[in-house]
Amino acid sequence: GFAVLDHQREMRTGFPEVIFGQGKTDDQIVEIFLRLKAKNPNVMASRISAEVYARIKDRLPFAVYDSMSRILYTKEKDGSIPGITVVTAGTGDIPVAEEAALTCELMGNKVQRIYDVGVSGLHRLIHRLDDVQQSNVIIVVAGMEGALASVVGGLVQCPVIAVPTSIGYGASFHGLAALLAMLNSCASGVAVVNIDNGFGAGCMASRINQLAGR
Amino acid sequence: GFAVLDHQREMRTGFPEVIFGQGKTDDQIVEIFLRLKAKNPNVMASRISAEVYARIKDRLPFAVYDSMSRILYTKEKDGSIPGITVVTAGTGDIPVAEEAALTCELMGNKVQRIYDVGVSGLHRLIHRLDDVQQSNVIIVVAGMEGALASVVGGLVQCPVIAVPTSIGYGASFHGLAALLAMLNSCASGVAVVNIDNGFGAGCMASRINQLAGR
Amino acid sequence: GFAVLDHQREMRTGFPEVIFGQGKTDDQIVEIFLRLKAKNPNVMASRISAEVYARIKDRLPFAVYDSMSRILYTKEKDGSIPGITVVTAGTGDIPVAEEAALTCELMGNKVQRIYDVGVSGLHRLIHRLDDVQQSNVIIVVAGMEGALASVVGGLVQCPVIAVPTSIGYGASFHGLAALLAMLNSCASGVAVVNIDNGFGAGCMASRINQLAGR
Amino acid sequence: GFAVLDHQREMRTGFPEVIFGQGKTDDQIVEIFLRLKAKNPNVMASRISAEVYARIKDRLPFAVYDSMSRILYTKEKDGSIPGITVVTAGTGDIPVAEEAALTCELMGNKVQRIYDVGVSGLHRLIHRLDDVQQSNVIIVVAGMEGALASVVGGLVQCPVIAVPTSIGYGASFHGLAALLAMLNSCASGVAVVNIDNGFGAGCMASRINQLAGR
Amino acid sequence: GFAVLDHQREMRTGFPEVIFGQGKTDDQIVEIFLRLKAKNPNVMASRISAEVYARIKDRLPFAVYDSMSRILYTKEKDGSIPGITVVTAGTGDIPVAEEAALTCELMGNKVQRIYDVGVSGLHRLIHRLDDVQQSNVIIVVAGMEGALASVVGGLVQCPVIAVPTSIGYGASFHGLAALLAMLNSCASGVAVVNIDNGFGAGCMASRINQLAGR
Amino acid sequence: GFAVLDHQREMRTGFPEVIFGQGKTDDQIVEIFLRLKAKNPNVMASRISAEVYARIKDRLPFAVYDSMSRILYTKEKDGSIPGITVVTAGTGDIPVAEEAALTCELMGNKVQRIYDVGVSGLHRLIHRLDDVQQSNVIIVVAGMEGALASVVGGLVQCPVIAVPTSIGYGASFHGLAALLAMLNSCASGVAVVNIDNGFGAGCMASRINQLAGR
Amino acid sequence: GFAVLDHQREMRTGFPEVIFGQGKTDDQIVEIFLRLKAKNPNVMASRISAEVYARIKDRLPFAVYDSMSRILYTKEKDGSIPGITVVTAGTGDIPVAEEAALTCELMGNKVQRIYDVGVSGLHRLIHRLDDVQQSNVIIVVAGMEGALASVVGGLVQCPVIAVPTSIGYGASFHGLAALLAMLNSCASGVAVVNIDNGFGAGCMASRINQLAGR
Amino acid sequence: GFAVLDHQREMRTGFPEVIFGQGKTDDQIVEIFLRLKAKNPNVMASRISAEVYARIKDRLPFAVYDSMSRILYTKEKDGSIPGITVVTAGTGDIPVAEEAALTCELMGNKVQRIYDVGVSGLHRLIHRLDDVQQSNVIIVVAGMEGALASVVGGLVQCPVIAVPTSIGYGASFHGLAALLAMLNSCASGVAVVNIDNGFGAGCMASRINQLAGR
Ligand SMILES: Nc1ncnc2c1ncn2[C@@H]1O[C@H](COP(=O)(O)O)[C@@H](O)[C@H]1O
Ligand SMILES: Nc1ncnc2c1ncn2[C@@H]1O[C@H](COP(=O)(O)O)[C@@H](O)[C@H]1O
Ligand SMILES: Nc1ncnc2c1ncn2[C@@H]1O[C@H](COP(=O)(O)O)[C@@H](O)[C@H]1O
Ligand SMILES: Nc1ncnc2c1ncn2[C@@H]1O[C@H](COP(=O)(O)O)[C@@H](O)[C@H]1O
Ligand SMILES: [Mg+2]
Ligand SMILES: [Mg+2]
Ligand SMILES: [Mg+2]
Ligand SMILES: [Mg+2]
Ligand SMILES: [Mg+2]
Ligand SMILES: [Mg+2]
Ligand SMILES: [Mg+2]
Ligand SMILES: [Mg+2]
Repeated sequence: GFAVLDHQREMRTGFPEVIFGQGKTDDQIVEIFLRLKAKNPNVMASRISAEVYARIKDRLPFAVYDSMSRILYTKEKDGSIPGITVVTAGTGDIPVAEEAALTCELMGNKVQRIYDVGVSGLHRLIHRLDDVQQSNVIIVVAGMEGALASVVGGLVQCPVIAVPTSIGYGASFHGLAALLAMLNSCASGVAVVNIDNGFGAGCMASRINQLAGR
Repeated sequence: GFAVLDHQREMRTGFPEVIFGQGKTDDQIVEIFLRLKAKNPNVMASRISAEVYARIKDRLPFAVYDSMSRILYTKEKDGSIPGITVVTAGTGDIPVAEEAALTCELMGNKVQRIYDVGVSGLHRLIHRLDDVQQSNVIIVVAGMEGALASVVGGLVQCPVIAVPTSIGYGASFHGLAALLAMLNSCASGVAVVNIDNGFGAGCMASRINQLAGR
Repeated sequence: GFAVLDHQREMRTGFPEVIFGQGKTDDQIVEIFLRLKAKNPNVMASRISAEVYARIKDRLPFAVYDSMSRILYTKEKDGSIPGITVVTAGTGDIPVAEEAALTCELMGNKVQRIYDVGVSGLHRLIHRLDDVQQSNVIIVVAGMEGALASVVGGLVQCPVIAVPTSIGYGASFHGLAALLAMLNSCASGVAVVNIDNGFGAGCMASRINQLAGR
Repeated sequence: GFAVLDHQREMRTGFPEVIFGQGKTDDQIVEIFLRLKAKNPNVMASRISAEVYARIKDRLPFAVYDSMSRILYTKEKDGSIPGITVVTAGTGDIPVAEEAALTCELMGNKVQRIYDVGVSGLHRLIHRLDDVQQSNVIIVVAGMEGALASVVGGLVQCPVIAVPTSIGYGASFHGLAALLAMLNSCASGVAVVNIDNGFGAGCMASRINQLAGR
Repeated sequence: GFAVLDHQREMRTGFPEVIFGQGKTDDQIVEIFLRLKAKNPNVMASRISAEVYARIKDRLPFAVYDSMSRILYTKEKDGSIPGITVVTAGTGDIPVAEEAALTCELMGNKVQRIYDVGVSGLHRLIHRLDDVQQSNVIIVVAGMEGALASVVGGLVQCPVIAVPTSIGYGASFHGLAALLAMLNSCASGVAVVNIDNGFGAGCMASRINQLAGR
Repeated sequence: GFAVLDHQREMRTGFPEVIFGQGKTDDQIVEIFLRLKAKNPNVMASRISAEVYARIKDRLPFAVYDSMSRILYTKEKDGSIPGITVVTAGTGDIPVAEEAALTCELMGNKVQRIYDVGVSGLHRLIHRLDDVQQSNVIIVVAGMEGALASVVGGLVQCPVIAVPTSIGYGASFHGLAALLAMLNSCASGVAVVNIDNGFGAGCMASRINQLAGR
Repeated sequence: GFAVLDHQREMRTGFPEVIFGQGKTDDQIVEIFLRLKAKNPNVMASRISAEVYARIKDRLPFAVYDSMSRILYTKEKDGSIPGITVVTAGTGDIPVAEEAALTCELMGNKVQRIYDVGVSGLHRLIHRLDDVQQSNVIIVVAGMEGALASVVGGLVQCPVIAVPTSIGYGASFHGLAALLAMLNSCASGVAVVNIDNGFGAGCMASRINQLAGR
Repeated sequence: GFAVLDHQREMRTGFPEVIFGQGKTDDQIVEIFLRLKAKNPNVMASRISAEVYARIKDRLPFAVYDSMSRILYTKEKDGSIPGITVVTAGTGDIPVAEEAALTCELMGNKVQRIYDVGVSGLHRLIHRLDDVQQSNVIIVVAGMEGALASVVGGLVQCPVIAVPTSIGYGASFHGLAALLAMLNSCASGVAVVNIDNGFGAGCMASRINQLAGR
């Protein structure tokens, strides 16, 4: 039956359904978090404000809130399986990158971070090429024209997950330019998630990395 | 240096750069194919017309042309590594699915095909659920509203690569509706390639499956 | 003449023209509400803020304000005719679903609510399948990729009204992804209303349910 | 199980799955049509070319092809349940309207056709107002600015299904203008199907009319 | 030379260049207004906030601010030439309609206002048909699906200027739905200005009405 | 009643409903043309192919076909009322301009044509400035960036009707660039019709010119 | 190697990487600014708020903040190489124009400013034609319909850089109308940068002007 | 006066107005070409078919037609001023690149061509880096995700003109993805022309190169 599947998921990731905080009232998030916590050792919620954390902290003092990624969770970050690298083009892409990285870590992976190596200064990426190439899977986070995904995709053998961000203005159209660029990557072995969807990239990378780690 | 990288790529996939036939003249394709063949045992080209094949056949009688996927190649289909499943929503999605499946096979994978199991008749997918769940990676090919990607994504633990197709009319906007739906999938572990990009999905799946097969 | 038509409408729904609060000043809404109330036993207004309710309450103490659906009305909720089911994909879709459900109830229908049964966990819907199938008409409320409408549409015989919501981010484009997905539903018997238009879905469902109830 | 559902569908509409001809090869359509016919008394296919019909005719001489709606079927048009009216704005909308009307008839309904009564000459609609108002459900088919849906919606009490068509040029954007207009209808009780989707409107109307006819 | 042209413009409308307040700082607006006033008897500015008016009032006590249309001016409203009618679909469209109407009046025309006569209740327009038909030029202001422009256009002989408004939500896309509908009007003799551009519609109507009044 | 209105229209323009040829079959156009001709002295049809004309010619030898504007009609071109000027930016805009000009002439106006005076060579327009300024109404036809409408609008006192054309490529998006530019014209007194809608511009101009000619 | 390139860049422009303030936290900007300043004599940051400046001022009292262009820098404005002209259509375009002009000046150029000469009053530009024509490169800054770029492009021999601005409303779609217009300019010798990207236009112009100045 | 300007243009480029062949009839092109040739030693036309050339050849045997760029001209290609480099990402971009290169040559420049060096195999560009860096101005021609423009922009000091091409499919939207990417380039000193506008890029580059060559 279906319930078995859900159980398997938790077995593997160590998490039940992850709470998506955006578009829910603070009351709803707090209630769902506590309800899930009552039945599960580990709970994770994304897109959480500091206000929600303040309310949870009183009830679950061991809950951890990471303000950069805006993830709230109750789990040890162990990150035992190496193989995932998260790369960003600029400084402004870091919050999305951290949402991806922390998701990977909470799901049991070790993450290598290589930030601010966008294509306008290609030497920054080239200097880290060996580190990049020793990955099982790479998450590339970039806004504006999103060119970094294609460049990384052309330099490595492993699967690349591209995350367009809403960094930019004008004709970036809130991440659309980067999204389209990444979907049209001339490098093969690149797949794309939604704009600013660090969490989705993290899940995908974790599933891939766990295949490698078997 | 960079040339090493390219060499590694060929080592692993068994193919040099894959020729993208669309937007090239027949003359250009024939010339590039023969030139690559002169230096490599295996050559592969996508988006190839029957006319180009007719011209190649005279020069390379052992070249194979698959008219459904429109791929032309000079390699044994061995497909030794199991683990990839290709699923389609409808019959119209099959050409794109075959582009993906044959790409996977040419890169050394064995492919399980489960076609015409779209969400308007969900029992068709449920009947094949065990087969679907025993995959390392799943390629979901769907046009119109692209809902199959989310449904499959919610039923499995492995990475899912979603390929929107241009099947549909009106507000499908040549695949845009399916593309947006797949990017917004509420199931985690789903990443997306360009509309009708079976080749790209095949490359990504092959890279993932080879991680699992190590 | 035309005036007869309007009278008939009131006869049937029990309501005169419904006030659309969005884009009107508070003063305008209060004035129109009181003016309509002076001539009609029942008045209904959608997209109403708590501030407007506070001002109406002093003048019409028996007016009711539902803060979830943001509907203000002066009528008994009786809901005597069964047959309408309102289904949502997630928690974030509930305000729109409540706008639909309360509209149906105020127009004389009984509503069955089945919330948070989106396709990422299909078993939730399957567990309620019997309840869903015993409807005259079903309203499906979903954001992000809007896949639930197609899945429900494939499982039932009755008409389905799909309401895309603006829940999501990035390439959801404020509900556009769900809207396009629903318009391209591969299930037949699905028609769509505007993004977040719970009221319109409720009107349509009520008209359909009253045909069945004759 | 799920198969039961499918069987019920056939019970009610008298048809198994309807073949969607667009995007399939002629060979595929002929094969699927014959295969379905072998197991079902009645078969229906939409978006069919005259060439496909020519090939079917030899094998199934009693098959009927309607060149206006481009529907191919093997069933008596009986249309016993009255209550559906199909209205068009212009002459160019008639093929889509006929796809809707014939779908309704094949599913057991009687259809009243009121064509070429667009809003640029409102008297044409007003002259037929009594006929329009005596419907259980109305399908409004219009391209260009699609205003007819709102006008009809404001004149009747029953549910209205709006079908935008791709008739128009320039800023009609192949039916987008009409689609958006219909989704934003200020008349309540209007729901919308995809551009040129006469078949979908027919299914929805038939489901609604059968509720009334119980 | 060119300067003559400008002078002629002022001759005819009685106004020098009209100040467009949006996107300018308060300081800039005040300065430009005073500078123009120093050289011209009459000055007009659109899209002006109450704050700017407060600052002007101290310096030019006879300046008038109309808070509905957000126009600030220093001129007698005489409105001597009859012939312009301004029609709106709903209550929410009135601010844009007033921007148009006051522009016409300041340029020497008399304006007939017919508000809240949208197509969802067609009888409201029909009751005022004689008044509408006795115009030299009609400005139709409507949001949502903008159908009123086509309906009016089909009922009159004179030129119609359609003003889409940003009233609506979801698939109205901030006025785009109404704009596209109006551009695709099946009634001839309809031309369109920018979304919410009451000022532009007023200028156009005034130029047309002055031709008639010669 | 409504029929009177239609009659009035014919009285004034000398034409009954104008046939829009696009999207109709040749058979339909021929039939409607002959049917209208049987009851009216003058008939006019736009977007007509040479094939349709060939078929009409046999039946109505005095029918005239203008291959540049693709208008077919049975009327004397008299064009007695002066005052309309049609201006184009380039050579490619001439077919649309001729659709506008011939429409004006068939409705009783005299037309001044000033073609190929686009803004990339502004002196061409300046040389004709006196001619342009002596108009009651000006139709500006331009594709690509559509800048000519704003430039003309800034040089004249009379109403300007802007017609965007689909001339261009790439980011002209089939006339969208010119359409948006014209809608955002910084010159006041400019209103816009649909892309390539010479007929609509001609009707609007004719209505305006007849006001002046009273 | 790559590092040499960066050094060359600084050699020429006198600046290391320019900090893009938008989308960074105040803390990040301050830290990066100080870090760059520690290693470079001159530092420049765009899109900076007054709050950030207040914090920098305490640490680097000689830093200069230009509130119109929102640029913060530590360099002498010398502007020794003449040849760049910055032209705007309106007053609202000035902040973007100043971002361009100050960027040019900080990179060693002298800038001629010609503001508020849009096409609705063409004589304003014509009066400055000699000044405009004596440039090596011209930056044209315009919102709304962006027509000024084409008009200037048609009057000069030198390269023109067009900057669309987000000035406008409705169908300007936040600068999209101007962007498309400029990309479709019928004048040759015009290239375009992103909406509101004064900085990018300034860099491009400076690179061009330095070629001329060699 | 204005005519002087035109004369200057010819002086400098050696060409009168360049004929844009697209959207003109063959007759029109032939006539304009011959008319211009009668008054000018050199004539140039873009977007010309082989059919038009066949007709011109009879009348002007010394006219040259380049079938790759589809340019027809009557001039010696001398290309005396070095400094322009044209770079393409792929083979499919070559026709647009040749339109740019030949335009430059016809306007008196020498062109260095570096083709098929896209970012999926970055080493190809790196191997040519010295050649690329010794340019006065670089034209980068790329379709799909257009990333090459940013990569080149980050490696050079001179102005870069980016030309998006319509090479690609699906979410490339006929060049839109590349266009947006190029407009959002994180490298400074990049400006963009219309999709497939090799001619425009050539004109801009020529103007820039002539500044350097003075
Ligand atoms: N069907 C396809 N869709 C997208 N990319 C492809 C396809 N086939 C080949 N490619 C890629 O196109 C590149 C070659 O492009 P080109 O140099 O234009 O032939 C290779 O890097 C392939 O990875
Ligand atoms: N939430 C809603 N969404 C769409 N339409 C609505 C809504 N609430 C009321 N309406 C419709 O808005 C119309 C009244 O609009 P107005 O005259 O602007 O108040 C009525 O015809 C209602 O049917
Ligand atoms: N206003 C601006 N618009 C576009 N790009 C800019 C702007 N200001 C600085 N930049 C560029 O932004 C880059 C720095 O980005 P970041 O690393 O995110 O600070 C530099 O390459 C600059 O050339
Ligand atoms: N391929 C091209 N793309 C864009 N503009 C062009 C092209 N070829 C010529 N032009 C321009 O088109 C104008 C002539 O347009 P027309 O009068 O329609 O022939 C000239 O100003 C040229 O600069
Ligand atoms: Mg950086
Ligand atoms: Mg099927
Ligand atoms: Mg949930
Ligand atoms: Mg008709
Ligand atoms: Mg109202
Ligand atoms: Mg020309
Ligand atoms: Mg100004
Ligand atoms: Mg290549």
